Amino acid sequence: MTKTKSSNVVWQERLVRRDEREAQRGHRGAIVWFTGLSGSGKSTLAIEVEQRLFEAGVFSYVLDGDNIRHGLNGDLGFSPEDRTENIRRIGEVAKLFADAGAIVLTAFISPYRADRDGVRAIMERPDDFVEVFVDCPLDVCERRDPKGLYAKARSGEIPNFTGISAPYEPPEAAEIRLDTGALSVDEAADRVLEFLRERGYLDASQRKEAS
Amino acid sequence: MTKTKSSNVVWQERLVRRDEREAQRGHRGAIVWFTGLSGSGKSTLAIEVEQRLFEAGVFSYVLDGDNIRHGLNGDLGFSPEDRTENIRRIGEVAKLFADAGAIVLTAFISPYRADRDGVRAIMERPDDFVEVFVDCPLDVCERRDPKGLYAKARSGEIPNFTGISAPYEPPEAAEIRLDTGALSVDEAADRVLEFLRERGYLDASQRKEAS
Repeated sequence: MTKTKSSNVVWQERLVRRDEREAQRGHRGAIVWFTGLSGSGKSTLAIEVEQRLFEAGVFSYVLDGDNIRHGLNGDLGFSPEDRTENIRRIGEVAKLFADAGAIVLTAFISPYRADRDGVRAIMERPDDFVEVFVDCPLDVCERRDPKGLYAKARSGEIPNFTGISAPYEPPEAAEIRLDTGALSVDEAADRVLEFLRERGYLDASQRKEAS
Repeated sequence: MTKTKSSNVVWQERLVRRDEREAQRGHRGAIVWFTGLSGSGKSTLAIEVEQRLFEAGVFSYVLDGDNIRHGLNGDLGFSPEDRTENIRRIGEVAKLFADAGAIVLTAFISPYRADRDGVRAIMERPDDFVEVFVDCPLDVCERRDPKGLYAKARSGEIPNFTGISAPYEPPEAAEIRLDTGALSVDEAADRVLEFLRERGYLDASQRKEAS
């Protein structure tokens, strides 16, 4: 990131640069953005990938409903405007983590294509944003219904529920698509790790643009 | 942080815990919160401390106006309400970095005591929040006026300017107070590093409560 610190010109050069962080840590910073319906397995998958990255010594971190909805975005609801602001803020926070040299994994429904593309657009490098479409059929998600949310959405107790009473716009060109109706968590995590390894994310000395 | 993932009970145990991150990295996560007038040296000092921590292999990161005001908080102005929301969000983001095992350095005027105490209050551990009062006399800050902001505030071109037309509430019990009217940047950075070292922040195996 170009830093213009008009106030501190003399110290500007000491700001730690992202490539220095990446070189020290031995891997790149990036956002791996999981998107999909409620119950599709985004959080489960993000947590599994984080664990594996951690074991490999990679600085990774999961942003999900647990640490965002109750904290930073506790003031937001589920109207279209609030959903958009929710994703905007998450994107900005994820960008900070990527700049800090982390592989940050975000697990949010993020139903609107424009919102996800908006996050991609603020990234410093085109391949900083890896979109993972957690593509599980609605009927499978609804059958799983781990939190009983689909039942409440069907009864009308929860309004604006993605897939039932609010839209989900699937990615048109996600870097990774995972059919989590068919794949196990292990298999799905393998695919993500494979992608990161093949594209050079786990090796700071190597950089390939994501397609 | 206690994570209750009702949806993913079977995977819950695989979530990487903060103490595991800290053990792997060899230092603790924490927030070092610099507060003080415009021109007092907060950013300069935070950047210097970050550089030194980086050289010591510590995962550190600076949050300041450059990466927050133009991004996450680009929608906020300088009214009392917006200043409060600005600090609330920064506190939440800093908390995420601390949870991820980073020593995050924040450099914002953060003029209201209640706002800073609000950030301290959301922390998981009492010693996660290290408040650093960058205590530079107003007349020194105004003489430096690196961005010409004090001149504009005096002329009325900038309203609600801290120290001139908006209040600054100094900390009553900051962990560190630095007279940056007298200390050099090097000396001030030494003090911060000394504190972190003495209190065990740079050694994950050792934990002392901050007074």
